Amino acid sequence: MAGATLGSRAMAGLLEPTLVEQPAWDGRSVAEHLREAGLDPAAISHAQRPEGSLAAYLELHIEQGGALDDTGVPIGVVTGIVGIRRYAVSFEGFANHAGTTPMASRSDALVMAAPFILTVRDVAVGQGIVGTVGTLRLEPGAPNVIPGRVELGVEIRGLQEDELDRAEAELEQQAQEAGAEFRRVSTKPPVESDPRLLEVLVGACDELGVAYRTMPSGAGHDAMCIAAIAPQAMLFVPSRGGVSHCPDEYTDPESCVAGARVLLAALLKLDARLDADS
Amino acid sequence: MAGATLGSRAMAGLLEPTLVEQPAWDGRSVAEHLREAGLDPAAISHAQRPEGSLAAYLELHIEQGGALDDTGVPIGVVTGIVGIRRYAVSFEGFANHAGTTPMASRSDALVMAAPFILTVRDVAVGQGIVGTVGTLRLEPGAPNVIPGRVELGVEIRGLQEDELDRAEAELEQQAQEAGAEFRRVSTKPPVESDPRLLEVLVGACDELGVAYRTMPSGAGHDAMCIAAIAPQAMLFVPSRGGVSHCPDEYTDPESCVAGARVLLAALLKLDARLDADS
Repeated sequence: MAGATLGSRAMAGLLEPTLVEQPAWDGRSVAEHLREAGLDPAAISHAQRPEGSLAAYLELHIEQGGALDDTGVPIGVVTGIVGIRRYAVSFEGFANHAGTTPMASRSDALVMAAPFILTVRDVAVGQGIVGTVGTLRLEPGAPNVIPGRVELGVEIRGLQEDELDRAEAELEQQAQEAGAEFRRVSTKPPVESDPRLLEVLVGACDELGVAYRTMPSGAGHDAMCIAAIAPQAMLFVPSRGGVSHCPDEYTDPESCVAGARVLLAALLKLDARLDADS
Repeated sequence: MAGATLGSRAMAGLLEPTLVEQPAWDGRSVAEHLREAGLDPAAISHAQRPEGSLAAYLELHIEQGGALDDTGVPIGVVTGIVGIRRYAVSFEGFANHAGTTPMASRSDALVMAAPFILTVRDVAVGQGIVGTVGTLRLEPGAPNVIPGRVELGVEIRGLQEDELDRAEAELEQQAQEAGAEFRRVSTKPPVESDPRLLEVLVGACDELGVAYRTMPSGAGHDAMCIAAIAPQAMLFVPSRGGVSHCPDEYTDPESCVAGARVLLAALLKLDARLDADS
């Protein structure tokens, strides 16, 4: 699917030319949606801005996690956006009759895969990152047939490449010991926030007397794409209960105002610097 | 789906009236298939035979398992057909963002379900029966979302009701300890072969000098249905490599001939008894 950061990827020149032909959330192509909105899909490359044409990029977003809400802090200053690596881990057993095949003669792909689900959790905890098995495909998937093949979709996220490297090496070794095929299917490197912008954001919080904490972003954001052409940083406001992408998503008005005030103060400070530089 | 023992269930009066409206393997109803074959779906109940109208029922089948092939014995005399119990075991977690939710704050339904997959294997081994998790449904099933719900389809098979009872009690307790909902979805009781028929089958093997072993059947068969209206027993011939229901299914001609000779000898012995009784 064509993903949610289409606009920022287009601005940063990160769009693959074939993307507009890919299906959007409803199965219709991105090009079809663009045409329906009165836009020309062929002109999407014109959205690209050259590197250096933007002095800086600031993004204010809900946290989509529970760290701020848990601690009652209204502002998160985002030090960076986590890198994301995804893997397909396949276990091959033998699909045989579940009634006539004795337990000792089985090669059950799901029994092989089950401990690895816990391995992903343990490796993530050990490296201080997050790790998730979000998809599981089982073949043939009948009540009276021993699973012959299981494919796990594994994702790890972390702010440091070396944490991700270590986690990947551990996962690959454990997968191989379990007789599984381990394949990396996608990689997004971590993106650090611009240190000058972080200083300005922290300064704005201090001046306004607004409490803040520094924190990484566990989710991808437009700022991650814009980083290719401009210095960037982000602010978070709390997500009640850490919940997002569902009808319960909520940020109270006071936090929204606090976020907007810090953003404005930071923009004015940056603007003053630009004036001083020019 | 409408299952494979349609004919024997119709003969034994075990068909539910609504069965002909159910979908067959291709999604079209059983009634549609019957009409296409020139049959009247409404007349299916006429297939029923009254209890006692058949003197005996013998069935010759491939083993669909590896016990005969492994030991080089050409004939299995089937002492009974295993009972089958199926369960739905549901684990409820909370579907949250896989990037922004720290490991310690997660309620991951797949992490909860993984140990239970191994529990099913261990309980089956402990009771000397077979147990399989053949299906697994995961929601929502996206790489960046923590699994919020997992439903396992669990099946156990055994020849003794008390083994099945003990296994069920253990599974239910372990499921409850893991916070899962445990629900029995179907039950087929074990069916023992008629002892008089077993004696005749064993006698036929001995007379012909054909090696045999007694064994349970791990799969369901027509004989299981016919048991409702007549004494029944079964013979097995080897399945090469224990493989069945796929293109590799094979029984060598010598074993087929041995099976047919024992079946014929047994039928002649039974026929002689009927003549003597009448």
